[in-house]
Amino acid sequence: MDIKRYMQQVGRAARAASRELARADSGRKNRALLAMAEAVERDRALLTAANGKDLDAARSAGLEAALLDRLTLSDAGITAMAEGLRQVAALPDPVGEMSDFSYRPSGIQLGKMRVPLGVIGIIYEARPNVTADAAALCLKAGNAAILRGGSEAFHSNQAIAACVHEGLRVAGLPDTAVQVIETTDRAAVGELITLSEYVDVLVPRGGKGLIARISADARVPVIKHLDGNCHVFIDERANLEQALAIAINAKTQRYGTCNTMETLLVHQAVAAEILPRLATAYGEKGVALRGCERTRALLGAQVAAATEEDWFTEYLAPILAIKVLDDLDQAIDHINHYGSHHTDAIVTEDYSRARRFLREVDSSSVMVNASTRFADGFEYGLGAEIGISTDKIHARGPVGLVGLTSQKWVVLGDGQVRG
Amino acid sequence: MDIKRYMQQVGRAARAASRELARADSGRKNRALLAMAEAVERDRALLTAANGKDLDAARSAGLEAALLDRLTLSDAGITAMAEGLRQVAALPDPVGEMSDFSYRPSGIQLGKMRVPLGVIGIIYEARPNVTADAAALCLKAGNAAILRGGSEAFHSNQAIAACVHEGLRVAGLPDTAVQVIETTDRAAVGELITLSEYVDVLVPRGGKGLIARISADARVPVIKHLDGNCHVFIDERANLEQALAIAINAKTQRYGTCNTMETLLVHQAVAAEILPRLATAYGEKGVALRGCERTRALLGAQVAAATEEDWFTEYLAPILAIKVLDDLDQAIDHINHYGSHHTDAIVTEDYSRARRFLREVDSSSVMVNASTRFADGFEYGLGAEIGISTDKIHARGPVGLVGLTSQKWVVLGDGQVRG
Repeated sequence: MDIKRYMQQVGRAARAASRELARADSGRKNRALLAMAEAVERDRALLTAANGKDLDAARSAGLEAALLDRLTLSDAGITAMAEGLRQVAALPDPVGEMSDFSYRPSGIQLGKMRVPLGVIGIIYEARPNVTADAAALCLKAGNAAILRGGSEAFHSNQAIAACVHEGLRVAGLPDTAVQVIETTDRAAVGELITLSEYVDVLVPRGGKGLIARISADARVPVIKHLDGNCHVFIDERANLEQALAIAINAKTQRYGTCNTMETLLVHQAVAAEILPRLATAYGEKGVALRGCERTRALLGAQVAAATEEDWFTEYLAPILAIKVLDDLDQAIDHINHYGSHHTDAIVTEDYSRARRFLREVDSSSVMVNASTRFADGFEYGLGAEIGISTDKIHARGPVGLVGLTSQKWVVLGDGQVRG
Repeated sequence: MDIKRYMQQVGRAARAASRELARADSGRKNRALLAMAEAVERDRALLTAANGKDLDAARSAGLEAALLDRLTLSDAGITAMAEGLRQVAALPDPVGEMSDFSYRPSGIQLGKMRVPLGVIGIIYEARPNVTADAAALCLKAGNAAILRGGSEAFHSNQAIAACVHEGLRVAGLPDTAVQVIETTDRAAVGELITLSEYVDVLVPRGGKGLIARISADARVPVIKHLDGNCHVFIDERANLEQALAIAINAKTQRYGTCNTMETLLVHQAVAAEILPRLATAYGEKGVALRGCERTRALLGAQVAAATEEDWFTEYLAPILAIKVLDDLDQAIDHINHYGSHHTDAIVTEDYSRARRFLREVDSSSVMVNASTRFADGFEYGLGAEIGISTDKIHARGPVGLVGLTSQKWVVLGDGQVRG
């Protein structure tokens, strides 16, 4: 197989399909999504068999348990996949939304129309559910999708692709609207990320390593999600009961998510009062603490000494770094310097400090008196998310359907010419 | 001079300055802009002398007339520069705008805040006026700027930088808010476009070659402006008087601008009636025509045969390609295939065709019954533009202050935690 030629064909076909998708109305796109959901449920046995093949190979290859877990398409997972397709069908269609029309002095009427981005390339690890998920979001936003999942999920992905294609055909849309790469050759990724003629944007989904590698080599814009090194700052004027609840929830509600708190910052004026109570609570949950000097002076030997490296670290584990600070300025500086511009929260009853925190913390989500765990597409009402962007241009934070579109300018005239 | 180390310093200083700018209020930014305008007018003689040095060197080096013209900072040019700074001061400040706040079922109140991008790198050719222009737009949008102008304008740019820095100091803002690279070493560009730690976005301004080169090597997102291969399609149901006026204006009002029409598409049903009248008008203006077979059959030997290459070409000159088409579908296909996704117009009185053209033509500006020449920041009411983007993500078309900002998510809570 000539990978370069194959990927060129895939790209060209995706571009052609994107033109058809751009003019497909919402009803047609929704019919496709609902038919995909039906096919997924009907083909439950086929999907399970294909996934079994992948799992057997992965076990033989000695894949570790966490990866096997992600690779597994359980019966409940298949149901959730079908449900996800139906949920995307139920979301409002962002394409074609017209806004901000007004007359200019020249007499032209100027406004904006929301349009698909065109062709989206998604590169992800061996998680078969992403195949249906990403296909659905791209399709609903009017984009053609080129999907490249981890090679360990090859058979599962091809089986899901068959369901997706059936749905497209039922609605009279081209198969090429969603193309799942039909090779496990890694060279295909290298080609995909440089297909600037045919691919408008890449969305890598997976670990930081994968995303950093793709971003470094891509010749196409990338919507990327690197670390989630999130902070909660408990201010001097915090409601301490709220602060306790938020600091515990932000760390312990789930450990492996990107919006989990990784460093807790505490104003020195309340540290002696709140830190012992927090330490007890974290201790009960089995969270290991690493603290600055002042934290350790208050909490003693149960807290390991935090190193410079700790402040930069996204643990994704029951580990928490704690730092006691003099004031809000230090908190803002710490977050902007060590953080990853993902999600950061302040707990305070002070109006001016809340305002400063919201304005000056340079993160995609900034919060007052709420847990960082709220930063996701579902909680934000986007319905579903293709990822969370840690970039600053285009879309910041959770990226839903709107993030997979752009706006073009529309001019309605009556024969105006420029003088 | 160690260029790598120098550019690292520049980047680090810009990042630090961007934090100060992000919290600078509108009044402070405007005071800086007005003080810059005053300094520019007061230092008229200094600026002229510095520019004279550049012009002497350029003449000795045998620079061609068009480049000398761009390099020249005339007295009127200096006045316009000061005026431009005042105009940017008068524009509304986009930073801090809060919108779309609503309550989510969890009880959090979610909305968006418009924020600066951070640090913007501008790379441009030897046009000294861009130095003041770009500095003003970046500053007003709350961004730190790193400016790298063409080396032929080195002395002019340094003189303008002194005025810019004076303005910043008057307003109590750091000099490093706007840094004009103090070396003509080309290696500085290579460093700037890979400073992903410190630079959030690059805006190259200049010819297609420069922009393509920068985009190919950049490791930082680029807002880029490649070709403007713009079309007007005269539909069967066009008001022919409007069509004449628009087709003549779009081509001849200015030849060198990116929103000038380069290919005229004509519906076969009206070609015989309108093409001879257009040919006469273009002939009077000295526009050379290149046509398809059908065009040449109607207009004869005065029209050269267009090649496949012509349909792709942005002439930026008194040359026009003309193609006669069967219908709207062919027009849309032609524009999407050969065009550059910049600005395209249809002339028609047909409601459904107008709607299809607006939706299906994949360009940053789509127009009905208006000249493509309207596609610019001033005509669109942006006040000023840093460029016109031919990209699809972030900003499409004319990029003004809003295009130099992003939106972050804001969550206002009352102690909510995730269940």
